[in-house]
Amino acid sequence: MIQTDILIIGAGPTGLFTVFEAGLLKLRCHLIDALAQPGGQCSEIYPKKPIYDIPAYPEILAGDLTDKLMEQIKQFEPGFTLGERADTIEKQDDGSFIVTTNKGTKHQAPIVAIAGGLGSFEPRKPPIPNIVDFEDKGVEYIIKEPELYRDKNVVIAGGGDSALDWSIFLTDIAKSVTLIHRRNEFRGALDSVDKVQELKDAGKLMLITPAEVKGIVGTDTVEGVIVEQKDKEAFTLPTDHFIPLFGLSPKLGPIADWGLEIEKNAIKVNNALDYQTNIPGIYAIGDVNTYPGKLKLILCGFHEATLMCQSAYKRIFPDKKYVMKYTTVGGVDGFDGTRKEAPKAVVKKIE
Amino acid sequence: MIQTDILIIGAGPTGLFTVFEAGLLKLRCHLIDALAQPGGQCSEIYPKKPIYDIPAYPEILAGDLTDKLMEQIKQFEPGFTLGERADTIEKQDDGSFIVTTNKGTKHQAPIVAIAGGLGSFEPRKPPIPNIVDFEDKGVEYIIKEPELYRDKNVVIAGGGDSALDWSIFLTDIAKSVTLIHRRNEFRGALDSVDKVQELKDAGKLMLITPAEVKGIVGTDTVEGVIVEQKDKEAFTLPTDHFIPLFGLSPKLGPIADWGLEIEKNAIKVNNALDYQTNIPGIYAIGDVNTYPGKLKLILCGFHEATLMCQSAYKRIFPDKKYVMKYTTVGGVDGFDGTRKEAPKAVVKKIE
Repeated sequence: MIQTDILIIGAGPTGLFTVFEAGLLKLRCHLIDALAQPGGQCSEIYPKKPIYDIPAYPEILAGDLTDKLMEQIKQFEPGFTLGERADTIEKQDDGSFIVTTNKGTKHQAPIVAIAGGLGSFEPRKPPIPNIVDFEDKGVEYIIKEPELYRDKNVVIAGGGDSALDWSIFLTDIAKSVTLIHRRNEFRGALDSVDKVQELKDAGKLMLITPAEVKGIVGTDTVEGVIVEQKDKEAFTLPTDHFIPLFGLSPKLGPIADWGLEIEKNAIKVNNALDYQTNIPGIYAIGDVNTYPGKLKLILCGFHEATLMCQSAYKRIFPDKKYVMKYTTVGGVDGFDGTRKEAPKAVVKKIE
Repeated sequence: MIQTDILIIGAGPTGLFTVFEAGLLKLRCHLIDALAQPGGQCSEIYPKKPIYDIPAYPEILAGDLTDKLMEQIKQFEPGFTLGERADTIEKQDDGSFIVTTNKGTKHQAPIVAIAGGLGSFEPRKPPIPNIVDFEDKGVEYIIKEPELYRDKNVVIAGGGDSALDWSIFLTDIAKSVTLIHRRNEFRGALDSVDKVQELKDAGKLMLITPAEVKGIVGTDTVEGVIVEQKDKEAFTLPTDHFIPLFGLSPKLGPIADWGLEIEKNAIKVNNALDYQTNIPGIYAIGDVNTYPGKLKLILCGFHEATLMCQSAYKRIFPDKKYVMKYTTVGGVDGFDGTRKEAPKAVVKKIE
């Protein structure tokens, strides 16, 4: 059982920054995310796209935003349960909560902060009847660990940035990479499209277009895919892995059944005070919540996380009085023993 | 008469970021600040000190924070009335407001956003009876325009960072610089103390310690100061300027008399909706406001500014429906004709 002070569901920008604000209050955090890496959408969907409305960043790539936040919270040693979706929550007699993921990992904390963004990102699956039988047995919808593909034959399906970028990336690792798309045209960054063309011309990547994977064959694990190419007969292409990259669509998912007040696919919170939900001890911050005037902006999530941590502190330590200190004045003491502080003024004689 | 959409009182981080959020809504802003430069405390009081809790900045110097915000809002061409304090406000028949500064500059806008921080920074004045007679006639408490001192004789009083840093800076401009402090010890960055020692040793700066300026002489403008040095007889030191740098202390000031609901030296706002005050059309954002759970943090001001701008938009255009677009998706169109946008995806055949 993983135990922590604040269990954060969702490791996007809001969830990550919560670790920092909690850390200033000496509260420890653990994050659960369905994606394989921290950063939420920013890392998974648009890491190379610029954001212009993060305060004091005239421009920052979404992936760099994640990196900066990870650097900022490093001192506070957050724990991560990645690639697992928070499925159930149970309130304990002592007021704490136990959250269990779809893989059975259990987490206990007195405070739960749902920073789930638009929901957990679920892959769009191709309509292949027996595909579920091969999930995690050669079929992966999200690439979590590139090393899994070392010296293997890999078939990637899709025509967008993900399909292009992973095809490029895996040519260095896999024994063979075949990219299948139902059109001849790809949609993505010009660089990526050109790079795939180059790899294809160099014989480092096989391209089959316009074509679709219509079936999977194999006894226990994937052994091949059935490919239908326009104006040709269907054929079986031997492969160890089939990776359909047709995009991710966010779903509020199991959280919707936790007894929280939901409005328009978002969780209602008390914005007049602390972003707490209708269940005391459970907060919702960032894009996942709703209240009058709500804006789904990252900068709003940062504020909500900050106020939420203060409220969480009071719930955990009802008798302690917390006096806020500015980081410029008080410095930042990490759980890892490091300390950040402003250079001290000296008092020195001039003679 | 200066006319704008949102008149912002206070050019600290919150006020500056308001320009950006307003700009996304195509609203123009003008800022009034009692200080001579934008950035508020960050620029005036602690530009070289690090802040650790700006989201996604593991560390940023307060002065750099100001620079980044100025760069971010540049596209939206904010107007500035600097070195003047907002003194009076009058509501017009058309619902707009006219704000007049202590120097008589008039500004008109349908929306006023008070982002006044802890108040306008007023200098601590030394107890010299006739000092008021020489204000702006050789006595300055804040250095607004260093060129004023070119080839002049200058006396600076004080023992902190301001006194040290301006003494150093002005040795390159003024004919002579004399630094007077009531102790032998100075309190400031080690670099600055050492630099003053060095300038003194090189004869580029005169130091009189422990000593105090007890009087000012001159017919119309400053002609000299009366210095009392320990164990010595008082003497008159001829000078063109006397600059006492004994710190700035924030005062809510005239805003306190605008009919706004005040609580603990801060302006009460509706945090459940849009950070509006008890006077419709006047908002208060950042450290100057108060509500249940309020934290005087820069990152909270950013959020408050953002929600406030949405509300202001609805007041100005009650019939228009605004649909928020993410900057990553929609780009940012400046009033100066510039456009920021994410690189477009291409649709391109690979063959």
